[in-house]
Amino acid sequence: MALNVTQSEQMLKSAVRKATEIGVPVHIAILDAGAHLKAFLRMDGAVLGSLDVALKKARTAVLFEMNSEAVRDYLKPGAAAEGLELTNGVLVTFAGGIPIRSATGELLGAIGVSGGAVPQDFEIATAGLCAYRTPSATIE
Amino acid sequence: MALNVTQSEQMLKSAVRKATEIGVPVHIAILDAGAHLKAFLRMDGAVLGSLDVALKKARTAVLFEMNSEAVRDYLKPGAAAEGLELTNGVLVTFAGGIPIRSATGELLGAIGVSGGAVPQDFEIATAGLCAYRTPSATIE
Amino acid sequence: MALNVTQSEQMLKSAVRKATEIGVPVHIAILDAGAHLKAFLRMDGAVLGSLDVALKKARTAVLFEMNSEAVRDYLKPGAAAEGLELTNGVLVTFAGGIPIRSATGELLGAIGVSGGAVPQDFEIATAGLCAYRTPSATIE
Amino acid sequence: MALNVTQSEQMLKSAVRKATEIGVPVHIAILDAGAHLKAFLRMDGAVLGSLDVALKKARTAVLFEMNSEAVRDYLKPGAAAEGLELTNGVLVTFAGGIPIRSATGELLGAIGVSGGAVPQDFEIATAGLCAYRTPSATIE
Repeated sequence: MALNVTQSEQMLKSAVRKATEIGVPVHIAILDAGAHLKAFLRMDGAVLGSLDVALKKARTAVLFEMNSEAVRDYLKPGAAAEGLELTNGVLVTFAGGIPIRSATGELLGAIGVSGGAVPQDFEIATAGLCAYRTPSATIE
Repeated sequence: MALNVTQSEQMLKSAVRKATEIGVPVHIAILDAGAHLKAFLRMDGAVLGSLDVALKKARTAVLFEMNSEAVRDYLKPGAAAEGLELTNGVLVTFAGGIPIRSATGELLGAIGVSGGAVPQDFEIATAGLCAYRTPSATIE
Repeated sequence: MALNVTQSEQMLKSAVRKATEIGVPVHIAILDAGAHLKAFLRMDGAVLGSLDVALKKARTAVLFEMNSEAVRDYLKPGAAAEGLELTNGVLVTFAGGIPIRSATGELLGAIGVSGGAVPQDFEIATAGLCAYRTPSATIE
Repeated sequence: MALNVTQSEQMLKSAVRKATEIGVPVHIAILDAGAHLKAFLRMDGAVLGSLDVALKKARTAVLFEMNSEAVRDYLKPGAAAEGLELTNGVLVTFAGGIPIRSATGELLGAIGVSGGAVPQDFEIATAGLCAYRTPSATIE
Protein backbone atom coordinates (compact mmCIF):
# COMPACT_ATOMS: atom_id res chain seq x y z
CA MET A 1 0.00 0.00 0.00
CA ALA A 2 1.41 3.38 -0.99
CA LEU A 3 0.50 6.95 -0.28
CA ASN A 4 -1.24 8.32 -3.36
CA VAL A 5 -1.49 11.75 -4.94
CA THR A 6 -5.06 12.33 -3.76
CA GLN A 7 -4.13 11.68 -0.15
CA SER A 8 -0.99 13.78 -0.44
CA GLU A 9 -2.86 16.72 -1.90
CA GLN A 10 -5.52 16.45 0.78
CA MET A 11 -2.86 16.59 3.45
CA LEU A 12 -1.15 19.58 1.83
CA LYS A 13 -4.48 21.43 1.53
CA SER A 14 -5.49 20.71 5.07
CA ALA A 15 -2.11 21.82 6.39
CA VAL A 16 -2.22 25.01 4.32
CA ARG A 17 -5.73 25.76 5.60
CA LYS A 18 -4.58 25.45 9.21
CA ALA A 19 -1.42 27.50 8.57
CA THR A 20 -3.49 30.22 6.94
CA GLU A 21 -5.91 30.20 9.86
CA ILE A 22 -2.99 30.57 12.31
CA GLY A 23 -1.37 33.12 10.03
CA VAL A 24 2.06 31.52 9.65
CA PRO A 25 3.59 30.57 6.28
CA VAL A 26 5.29 27.16 6.33
CA HIS A 27 6.97 24.53 4.19
CA ILE A 28 5.12 21.19 4.04
CA ALA A 29 6.87 18.01 2.93
CA ILE A 30 5.31 14.60 2.43
CA LEU A 31 7.62 11.60 2.13
CA ASP A 32 6.80 7.98 1.29
CA ALA A 33 7.77 4.91 3.33
CA GLY A 34 11.18 4.86 1.61
CA ALA A 35 11.81 8.44 2.81
CA HIS A 36 11.55 9.79 -0.73
CA LEU A 37 9.66 12.96 -1.61
CA LYS A 38 6.04 12.52 -2.66
CA ALA A 39 4.72 16.09 -2.46
CA PHE A 40 5.97 19.47 -1.27
CA LEU A 41 4.72 23.02 -0.99
CA ARG A 42 6.37 26.22 0.25
CA MET A 43 3.76 28.79 1.21
CA ASP A 44 4.41 32.36 0.11
CA GLY A 45 6.54 34.17 2.64
CA ALA A 46 7.90 31.07 4.38
CA VAL A 47 11.47 31.58 5.61
CA LEU A 48 13.96 29.85 3.29
CA GLY A 49 15.87 28.15 6.10
CA SER A 50 12.79 26.17 7.09
CA LEU A 51 12.75 24.27 3.80
CA ASP A 52 15.49 21.90 4.91
CA VAL A 53 13.96 21.66 8.39
CA ALA A 54 10.58 20.53 7.03
CA LEU A 55 12.24 17.88 4.87
CA LYS A 56 14.37 16.62 7.76
CA LYS A 57 11.44 16.50 10.20
CA ALA A 58 9.51 14.28 7.81
CA ARG A 59 12.62 12.22 7.16
CA THR A 60 13.27 11.72 10.86
CA ALA A 61 9.66 10.66 11.45
CA VAL A 62 9.58 8.09 8.67
CA LEU A 63 13.06 6.71 9.35
CA PHE A 64 12.33 6.01 13.01
CA GLU A 65 8.56 5.46 12.66
CA MET A 66 7.70 7.97 15.37
CA ASN A 67 7.09 11.68 15.81
CA SER A 68 10.26 13.69 15.23
CA GLU A 69 10.22 15.00 18.81
CA ALA A 70 9.94 11.47 20.20
CA VAL A 71 13.31 10.63 18.68
CA ARG A 72 14.92 13.14 21.03
CA ASP A 73 14.40 10.84 24.00
CA TYR A 74 16.95 8.48 22.51
CA LEU A 75 19.69 11.01 21.92
CA LYS A 76 19.48 13.63 24.64
CA PRO A 77 22.57 14.04 26.85
CA GLY A 78 23.05 10.88 28.87
CA ALA A 79 20.58 8.82 26.83
CA ALA A 80 21.61 5.56 25.25
CA ALA A 81 21.97 6.80 21.71
CA GLU A 82 23.60 10.15 22.30
CA GLY A 83 24.78 11.50 18.94
CA LEU A 84 22.11 9.71 16.91
CA GLU A 85 21.09 13.09 15.47
CA LEU A 86 24.29 13.09 13.42
CA THR A 87 23.23 10.02 11.44
CA ASN A 88 21.10 9.76 8.32
CA GLY A 89 22.34 13.06 6.99
CA VAL A 90 21.33 14.75 10.27
CA LEU A 91 18.01 14.33 12.12
CA VAL A 92 15.65 17.07 13.30
CA THR A 93 14.19 16.10 16.64
CA PHE A 94 11.72 18.78 17.57
CA ALA A 95 8.03 18.65 16.78
CA GLY A 96 6.55 18.94 13.30
CA GLY A 97 7.37 15.55 11.76
CA ILE A 98 4.69 12.84 12.08
CA PRO A 99 4.49 9.36 10.54
CA ILE A 100 1.56 8.60 8.25
CA ARG A 101 -0.03 5.21 8.85
CA SER A 102 -2.85 3.31 7.18
CA ALA A 103 -6.00 2.30 9.08
CA THR A 104 -4.26 -1.00 9.87
CA GLY A 105 -1.11 0.66 11.15
CA GLU A 106 1.12 0.18 8.16
CA LEU A 107 3.76 2.90 7.78
CA LEU A 108 3.08 4.87 4.59
CA GLY A 109 5.39 7.83 5.06
CA ALA A 110 5.54 11.06 7.03
CA ILE A 111 4.56 14.69 6.94
CA GLY A 112 7.00 17.43 7.99
CA VAL A 113 6.14 21.07 8.64
CA SER A 114 8.44 24.01 9.44
CA GLY A 115 8.24 27.79 9.36
CA GLY A 116 6.34 28.76 12.50
CA ALA A 117 6.94 28.30 16.19
CA VAL A 118 7.44 24.62 16.99
CA PRO A 119 3.96 24.10 18.52
CA GLN A 120 2.45 25.78 15.45
CA ASP A 121 4.38 23.50 13.12
CA PHE A 122 3.08 20.52 15.09
CA GLU A 123 -0.50 21.78 14.94
CA ILE A 124 -0.24 22.29 11.18
CA ALA A 125 1.30 18.87 10.60
CA THR A 126 -1.43 17.29 12.69
CA ALA A 127 -4.09 19.12 10.69
CA GLY A 128 -2.49 17.84 7.52
CA LEU A 129 -2.45 14.31 8.80
CA CYS A 130 -6.10 14.43 9.86
CA ALA A 131 -7.10 15.03 6.26
CA TYR A 132 -5.71 11.62 5.44
CA ARG A 133 -6.90 9.82 8.52
CA THR A 134 -10.48 11.02 8.10
CA PRO A 135 -11.11 10.39 4.44
CA SER A 136 -14.79 11.05 4.98
CA ALA A 137 -14.03 14.62 5.99
CA THR A 138 -15.14 17.05 3.36
CA ILE A 139 -12.01 18.25 1.67
CA GLU A 140 -12.83 20.40 -1.27
CA MET B 1 8.78 39.35 -8.07
CA ALA B 2 8.52 35.78 -6.87
CA LEU B 3 6.65 32.71 -8.03
CA ASN B 4 3.62 32.26 -5.76
CA VAL B 5 1.68 29.22 -4.58
CA THR B 6 -1.27 29.83 -6.90
CA GLN B 7 0.96 29.89 -9.95
CA SER B 8 2.89 26.86 -8.77
CA GLU B 9 -0.25 24.84 -8.17
CA GLN B 10 -1.63 25.83 -11.57
CA MET B 11 1.54 24.59 -13.20
CA LEU B 12 1.47 21.31 -11.28
CA LYS B 13 -2.19 20.72 -12.18
CA SER B 14 -1.70 21.52 -15.81
CA ALA B 15 1.33 19.24 -16.01
CA VAL B 16 -0.56 16.42 -14.27
CA ARG B 17 -3.48 16.81 -16.66
CA LYS B 18 -1.19 16.49 -19.67
CA ALA B 19 0.67 13.53 -18.15
CA THR B 20 -2.63 11.80 -17.43
CA GLU B 21 -3.79 12.44 -20.98
CA ILE B 22 -0.57 10.92 -22.35
CA GLY B 23 -0.76 8.14 -19.80
CA VAL B 24 2.67 8.47 -18.22
CA PRO B 25 3.27 9.08 -14.50
CA VAL B 26 5.97 11.68 -13.80
CA HIS B 27 7.67 13.74 -11.10
CA ILE B 28 7.15 17.51 -11.38
CA ALA B 29 9.44 19.96 -9.60
CA ILE B 30 9.09 23.73 -9.43
CA LEU B 31 12.08 25.76 -8.23
CA ASP B 32 12.37 29.50 -7.52
CA ALA B 33 14.96 31.85 -9.04
CA GLY B 34 17.50 30.87 -6.37
CA ALA B 35 17.10 27.19 -7.35
CA HIS B 36 15.23 26.33 -4.14
CA LEU B 37 12.16 24.05 -4.10
CA LYS B 38 8.78 25.78 -4.27
CA ALA B 39 6.45 22.86 -5.11
CA PHE B 40 6.75 19.20 -6.02
CA LEU B 41 4.51 16.28 -6.90
CA ARG B 42 5.24 12.64 -7.71
CA MET B 43 2.39 11.04 -9.62
CA ASP B 44 1.36 7.54 -8.57
CA GLY B 45 3.48 4.94 -10.33
CA ALA B 46 6.30 7.26 -11.33
CA VAL B 47 9.68 5.50 -11.35
CA LEU B 48 11.71 6.44 -8.24
CA GLY B 49 14.89 7.20 -10.14
CA SER B 50 13.18 10.01 -12.00
CA LEU B 51 12.72 12.05 -8.82
CA ASP B 52 16.31 13.27 -8.84
CA VAL B 53 16.17 13.75 -12.61
CA ALA B 54 13.16 16.06 -12.38
CA LEU B 55 14.85 18.12 -9.66
CA LYS B 56 18.10 18.38 -11.64
CA LYS B 57 16.35 19.30 -14.88
CA ALA B 58 14.64 22.20 -13.14
CA ARG B 59 17.89 23.13 -11.41
CA THR B 60 19.83 23.09 -14.68
CA ALA B 61 17.20 25.28 -16.36
CA VAL B 62 17.16 27.92 -13.65
CA LEU B 63 20.93 27.97 -13.11
CA PHE B 64 21.68 28.55 -16.79
CA GLU B 65 18.47 30.41 -17.68
CA MET B 66 17.69 28.14 -20.62
CA ASN B 67 15.98 24.85 -21.39
CA SER B 68 17.88 21.93 -19.91
CA GLU B 69 18.51 20.41 -23.36
CA ALA B 70 19.95 23.70 -24.63
CA VAL B 71 22.74 23.41 -22.07
CA ARG B 72 23.96 20.29 -23.84
CA ASP B 73 25.24 22.31 -26.79
CA TYR B 74 27.88 23.74 -24.50
CA LEU B 75 29.19 20.48 -23.11
CA LYS B 76 28.82 17.76 -25.72
CA PRO B 77 32.05 16.04 -26.82
CA GLY B 78 34.25 18.55 -28.57
CA ALA B 79 32.16 21.55 -27.47
CA ALA B 80 33.75 24.43 -25.62
CA ALA B 81 32.57 23.54 -22.13
CA GLU B 82 33.01 19.76 -22.18
CA GLY B 83 32.54 18.49 -18.64
CA LEU B 84 30.24 21.33 -17.55
CA GLU B 85 27.69 18.68 -16.54
CA LEU B 86 29.83 17.78 -13.52
CA THR B 87 29.42 21.24 -11.97
CA ASN B 88 26.68 22.50 -9.69
CA GLY B 89 26.16 19.07 -8.16
CA VAL B 90 25.67 17.52 -11.64
CA LEU B 91 23.49 18.90 -14.43
CA VAL B 92 20.84 17.07 -16.43
CA THR B 93 20.97 18.20 -20.04
CA PHE B 94 18.15 16.47 -21.84
CA ALA B 95 14.69 17.93 -22.30
CA GLY B 96 12.18 18.46 -19.52
CA GLY B 97 13.58 21.47 -17.65
CA ILE B 98 12.27 24.90 -18.70
CA PRO B 99 12.84 28.35 -17.13
CA ILE B 100 9.77 30.22 -15.87
CA ARG B 101 9.77 33.91 -16.77
CA SER B 102 7.42 36.77 -16.00
CA ALA B 103 5.61 38.65 -18.75
CA THR B 104 8.49 41.11 -18.75
CA GLY B 105 11.11 38.38 -19.07
CA GLU B 106 12.31 38.27 -15.49
CA LEU B 107 13.56 34.82 -14.41
CA LEU B 108 11.24 33.47 -11.72
CA GLY B 109 12.39 29.85 -11.52
CA ALA B 110 12.02 26.64 -13.53
CA ILE B 111 9.84 23.58 -13.95
CA GLY B 112 11.39 20.12 -14.30
CA VAL B 113 9.58 16.94 -15.37
CA SER B 114 10.85 13.36 -15.54
CA GLY B 115 9.35 9.89 -15.70
CA GLY B 116 8.33 9.40 -19.31
CA ALA B 117 10.18 9.35 -22.58
CA VAL B 118 12.16 12.57 -22.97
CA PRO B 119 9.80 14.13 -25.55
CA GLN B 120 6.89 13.30 -23.24
CA ASP B 121 8.63 14.95 -20.28
CA PHE B 122 9.16 18.04 -22.43
CA GLU B 123 5.53 18.10 -23.54
CA ILE B 124 4.35 17.82 -19.93
CA ALA B 125 6.72 20.53 -18.71
CA THR B 126 5.54 22.79 -21.50
CA ALA B 127 1.91 22.14 -20.58
CA GLY B 128 2.74 23.01 -16.98
CA LEU B 129 4.43 26.21 -18.00
CA CYS B 130 1.52 27.26 -20.20
CA ALA B 131 -0.74 27.28 -17.17
CA TYR B 132 1.39 30.05 -15.75
CA ARG B 133 1.88 31.95 -18.93
CA THR B 134 -1.84 31.98 -19.75
CA PRO B 135 -3.33 32.97 -16.42
CA SER B 136 -6.67 33.57 -18.13
CA ALA B 137 -6.94 29.89 -19.02
CA THR B 138 -9.55 28.19 -16.92
CA ILE B 139 -7.65 26.18 -14.38
CA GLU B 140 -9.89 24.94 -11.68
CA MET C 1 15.20 43.89 -6.55
CA ALA C 2 18.68 42.44 -6.22
CA LEU C 3 21.85 43.46 -4.45
CA ASN C 4 24.20 44.96 -7.03
CA VAL C 5 27.99 45.14 -7.37
CA THR C 6 28.21 48.78 -6.32
CA GLN C 7 26.35 48.12 -3.08
CA SER C 8 28.37 44.98 -2.42
CA GLU C 9 31.68 46.75 -2.94
CA GLN C 10 30.60 49.62 -0.70
CA MET C 11 29.80 47.14 2.05
CA LEU C 12 33.12 45.34 1.65
CA LYS C 13 35.05 48.62 1.73
CA SER C 14 33.21 49.93 4.74
CA ALA C 15 33.74 46.65 6.60
CA VAL C 16 37.43 46.61 5.73
CA ARG C 17 37.83 50.20 6.92
CA LYS C 18 36.28 49.34 10.28
CA ALA C 19 38.36 46.16 10.61
CA THR C 20 41.52 48.10 9.82
CA GLU C 21 40.58 50.72 12.39
CA ILE C 22 40.07 48.01 15.01
CA GLY C 23 43.16 46.23 13.83
CA VAL C 24 41.74 42.78 13.20
CA PRO C 25 41.89 40.97 9.84
CA VAL C 26 38.62 39.26 8.87
CA HIS C 27 36.77 37.44 6.11
CA ILE C 28 33.73 39.26 4.72
CA ALA C 29 31.06 37.42 2.74
CA ILE C 30 28.04 38.92 1.01
CA LEU C 31 25.25 36.58 -0.11
CA ASP C 32 22.12 37.31 -2.16
CA ALA C 33 18.55 36.51 -1.09
CA GLY C 34 18.89 32.95 -2.41
CA ALA C 35 21.96 32.43 -0.18
CA HIS C 36 24.37 32.45 -3.13
CA LEU C 37 27.72 34.27 -3.03
CA LYS C 38 27.75 37.81 -4.44
CA ALA C 39 31.09 39.14 -3.13
CA PHE C 40 33.84 38.02 -0.78
CA LEU C 41 37.14 39.29 0.59
CA ARG C 42 39.69 37.78 2.96
CA MET C 43 41.86 40.43 4.54
CA ASP C 44 45.60 39.71 4.75
CA GLY C 45 46.39 37.75 7.87
CA ALA C 46 42.86 36.51 8.54
CA VAL C 47 42.82 33.05 10.12
CA LEU C 48 41.90 30.39 7.54
CA GLY C 49 39.29 28.69 9.71
CA SER C 50 37.21 31.85 9.78
CA LEU C 51 36.51 31.64 6.05
CA ASP C 52 33.81 29.00 6.51
CA VAL C 53 32.50 30.80 9.59
CA ALA C 54 31.97 34.05 7.69
CA LEU C 55 30.13 32.22 4.91
CA LYS C 56 27.93 30.32 7.37
CA LYS C 57 27.11 33.43 9.42
CA ALA C 58 25.87 35.16 6.29
CA ARG C 59 24.02 32.02 5.22
CA THR C 60 22.34 31.67 8.61
CA ALA C 61 21.24 35.31 8.55
CA VAL C 62 19.71 35.16 5.08
CA LEU C 63 18.08 31.75 5.57
CA PHE C 64 16.30 32.77 8.77
CA GLU C 65 15.96 36.48 7.99
CA MET C 66 17.50 37.56 11.27
CA ASN C 67 20.90 38.22 12.83
CA SER C 68 22.89 35.03 13.19
CA GLU C 69 23.02 35.35 16.98
CA ALA C 70 19.23 35.75 17.16
CA VAL C 71 18.84 32.25 15.73
CA ARG C 72 20.50 30.86 18.86
CA ASP C 73 17.43 31.65 20.95
CA TYR C 74 15.61 28.94 19.04
CA LEU C 75 18.14 26.17 19.46
CA LYS C 76 19.96 26.63 22.76
CA PRO C 77 19.66 23.72 25.22
CA GLY C 78 16.08 23.40 26.30
CA ALA C 79 14.75 25.74 23.63
CA ALA C 80 12.03 24.62 21.25
CA ALA C 81 14.22 23.94 18.24
CA GLU C 82 17.23 22.32 19.90
CA GLY C 83 19.43 20.86 17.17
CA LEU C 84 18.35 23.34 14.48
CA GLU C 85 22.04 24.23 14.02
CA LEU C 86 22.58 20.89 12.28
CA THR C 87 20.23 21.78 9.40
CA ASN C 88 20.99 23.65 6.20
CA GLY C 89 24.53 22.31 6.09
CA VAL C 90 25.18 23.59 9.63
CA LEU C 91 24.28 27.03 11.00
CA VAL C 92 26.56 29.47 12.82
CA THR C 93 24.63 31.20 15.58
CA PHE C 94 26.93 33.72 17.14
CA ALA C 95 27.14 37.35 16.08
CA GLY C 96 28.54 38.54 12.77
CA GLY C 97 25.81 37.62 10.27
CA ILE C 98 23.22 40.31 9.49
CA PRO C 99 20.44 40.37 6.88
CA ILE C 100 20.56 43.10 4.24
CA ARG C 101 17.18 44.71 3.56
CA SER C 102 16.02 47.36 1.12
CA ALA C 103 14.56 50.66 2.33
CA THR C 104 11.13 49.03 2.08
CA GLY C 105 12.18 46.00 4.13
CA GLU C 106 12.64 43.50 1.32
CA LEU C 107 15.27 40.84 2.08
CA LEU C 108 18.18 41.28 -0.34
CA GLY C 109 20.79 39.01 1.24
CA ALA C 110 23.17 39.05 4.17
CA ILE C 111 26.68 40.03 5.23
CA GLY C 112 28.83 37.69 7.32
CA VAL C 113 32.09 38.60 9.06
CA SER C 114 34.52 36.37 10.95
CA GLY C 115 38.13 36.56 12.12
CA GLY C 116 38.08 38.71 15.23
CA ALA C 117 36.43 38.43 18.60
CA VAL C 118 32.70 37.98 18.16
CA PRO C 119 31.79 41.54 19.20
CA GLN C 120 34.41 42.82 16.75
CA ASP C 121 32.96 40.71 13.94
CA PHE C 122 29.53 42.15 14.73
CA GLU C 123 30.86 45.71 14.76
CA ILE C 124 32.57 45.17 11.40
CA ALA C 125 29.48 43.57 9.83
CA THR C 126 27.38 46.47 11.09
CA ALA C 127 29.82 48.97 9.61
CA GLY C 128 29.62 47.11 6.30
CA LEU C 129 25.86 47.17 6.35
CA CYS C 130 25.73 50.88 7.12
CA ALA C 131 27.52 51.58 3.85
CA TYR C 132 24.55 50.12 2.04
CA ARG C 133 21.89 51.64 4.20
CA THR C 134 23.36 55.14 3.88
CA PRO C 135 24.04 55.35 0.17
CA SER C 136 24.56 59.08 0.48
CA ALA C 137 27.58 58.54 2.70
CA THR C 138 30.79 59.34 0.91
CA ILE C 139 32.38 56.03 0.13
CA GLU C 140 35.34 56.40 -2.12
CA MET D 1 54.82 34.91 -0.14
CA ALA D 2 51.07 35.22 -0.26
CA LEU D 3 48.61 36.93 -2.54
CA ASN D 4 47.46 40.10 -0.82
CA VAL D 5 44.25 42.12 -0.86
CA THR D 6 45.67 44.87 -3.04
CA GLN D 7 46.73 42.41 -5.73
CA SER D 8 43.42 40.55 -5.50
CA GLU D 9 41.40 43.72 -5.87
CA GLN D 10 43.53 44.84 -8.80
CA MET D 11 42.86 41.53 -10.53
CA LEU D 12 39.13 41.74 -9.87
CA LYS D 13 38.99 45.32 -11.19
CA SER D 14 40.98 44.52 -14.27
CA ALA D 15 38.82 41.48 -15.01
CA VAL D 16 35.63 43.48 -14.50
CA ARG D 17 36.91 46.21 -16.80
CA LYS D 18 37.58 43.68 -19.57
CA ALA D 19 34.22 41.93 -19.03
CA THR D 20 32.43 45.27 -19.20
CA GLU D 21 34.30 46.15 -22.38
CA ILE D 22 33.27 42.82 -23.95
CA GLY D 23 29.78 43.22 -22.54
CA VAL D 24 29.48 39.89 -20.70
CA PRO D 25 28.73 39.63 -16.96
CA VAL D 26 30.87 37.00 -15.21
CA HIS D 27 31.82 35.53 -11.85
CA ILE D 28 35.46 36.05 -10.85
CA ALA D 29 37.10 33.92 -8.16
CA ILE D 30 40.58 34.31 -6.73
CA LEU D 31 42.00 31.45 -4.69
CA ASP D 32 45.24 31.27 -2.73
CA ALA D 33 47.95 28.59 -3.04
CA GLY D 34 45.99 26.34 -0.63
CA ALA D 35 42.95 26.54 -2.97
CA HIS D 36 41.03 28.64 -0.46
CA LEU D 37 38.96 31.67 -1.43
CA LYS D 38 40.73 35.03 -1.24
CA ALA D 39 38.33 37.27 -3.19
CA PHE D 40 35.19 36.88 -5.27
CA LEU D 41 32.79 39.02 -7.26
CA ARG D 42 29.63 38.20 -9.19
CA MET D 43 28.88 40.91 -11.75
CA ASP D 44 25.26 41.99 -12.04
CA GLY D 45 23.38 39.77 -14.46
CA ALA D 46 25.84 36.86 -14.40
CA VAL D 47 24.10 33.52 -14.77
CA LEU D 48 23.85 31.75 -11.39
CA GLY D 49 25.13 28.40 -12.71
CA SER D 50 28.49 29.97 -13.57
CA LEU D 51 29.29 30.68 -9.92
CA ASP D 52 30.34 27.09 -9.27
CA VAL D 53 32.13 26.93 -12.62
CA ALA D 54 34.30 29.98 -11.83
CA LEU D 55 35.24 28.54 -8.44
CA LYS D 56 36.08 25.14 -9.95
CA LYS D 57 38.14 26.62 -12.79
CA ALA D 58 40.31 28.47 -10.29
CA ARG D 59 40.48 25.39 -8.09
CA THR D 60 41.55 23.18 -10.99
CA ALA D 61 44.25 25.66 -12.00
CA VAL D 62 45.77 25.98 -8.55
CA LEU D 63 45.52 22.27 -7.71
CA PHE D 64 47.41 21.21 -10.83
CA GLU D 65 49.50 24.37 -11.26
CA MET D 66 48.44 24.86 -14.87
CA ASN D 67 45.67 26.47 -16.89
CA SER D 68 42.37 24.67 -16.39
CA GLU D 69 42.16 23.70 -20.08
CA ALA D 70 45.66 22.20 -19.96
CA VAL D 71 44.45 19.64 -17.43
CA ARG D 72 42.17 18.19 -20.09
CA ASP D 73 45.14 16.65 -21.92
CA TYR D 74 45.59 14.28 -19.01
CA LEU D 75 42.03 13.04 -18.81
CA LYS D 76 40.59 13.01 -22.31
CA PRO D 77 39.42 9.64 -23.63
CA GLY D 78 42.41 7.36 -24.03
CA ALA D 79 44.75 9.59 -22.04
CA ALA D 80 46.67 8.24 -19.09
CA ALA D 81 44.53 9.77 -16.36
CA GLU D 82 41.06 9.27 -17.81
CA GLY D 83 38.54 10.09 -15.08
CA LEU D 84 40.78 12.56 -13.27
CA GLU D 85 37.98 15.15 -13.61
CA LEU D 86 36.00 13.24 -10.98
CA THR D 87 38.60 13.88 -8.29
CA ASN D 88 39.02 16.86 -5.96
CA GLY D 89 35.28 17.46 -5.82
CA VAL D 90 35.15 17.57 -9.63
CA LEU D 91 37.48 19.51 -11.93
CA VAL D 92 36.53 21.98 -14.66
CA THR D 93 38.87 21.56 -17.60
CA PHE D 94 37.94 24.20 -20.10
CA ALA D 95 39.55 27.63 -20.29
CA GLY D 96 39.08 30.37 -17.72
CA GLY D 97 41.21 29.13 -14.82
CA ILE D 98 44.82 30.38 -14.70
CA PRO D 99 47.50 30.00 -12.00
CA ILE D 100 48.88 33.16 -10.43
CA ARG D 101 52.66 33.13 -10.00
CA SER D 102 55.14 35.55 -8.49
CA ALA D 103 57.91 37.14 -10.56
CA THR D 104 60.15 34.26 -9.49
CA GLY D 105 57.62 31.61 -10.52
CA GLU D 106 56.26 30.74 -7.10
CA LEU D 107 52.64 29.56 -7.17
CA LEU D 108 50.46 32.07 -5.32
CA GLY D 109 46.98 30.91 -6.31
CA ALA D 110 44.66 31.08 -9.33
CA ILE D 111 41.99 33.18 -10.95
CA GLY D 112 38.81 31.60 -12.35
CA VAL D 113 36.27 33.30 -14.59
CA SER D 114 32.92 32.02 -15.90
CA GLY D 115 29.77 33.49 -17.38
CA GLY D 116 30.61 34.18 -21.00
CA ALA D 117 31.66 32.02 -23.92
CA VAL D 118 34.78 30.05 -23.03
CA PRO D 119 37.20 32.23 -25.05
CA GLN D 120 35.67 35.32 -23.40
CA ASP D 121 36.14 33.82 -19.94
CA PHE D 122 39.78 33.14 -20.81
CA GLU D 123 40.29 36.67 -22.12
CA ILE D 124 38.78 38.14 -18.94
CA ALA D 125 40.85 35.89 -16.67
CA THR D 126 43.98 36.86 -18.58
CA ALA D 127 43.13 40.54 -18.23
CA GLY D 128 42.67 40.01 -14.50
CA LEU D 129 45.99 38.28 -14.22
CA CYS D 130 47.82 41.01 -16.15
CA ALA D 131 46.85 43.50 -13.46
CA TYR D 132 48.92 41.50 -11.05
CA ARG D 133 51.78 40.69 -13.34
CA THR D 134 52.27 44.28 -14.41
CA PRO D 135 52.23 46.09 -11.11
CA SER D 136 53.48 49.23 -12.83
CA ALA D 137 50.34 49.40 -14.93
CA THR D 138 48.12 52.23 -13.88
CA ILE D 139 45.27 50.64 -12.00
CA GLU D 140 43.01 53.21 -10.51
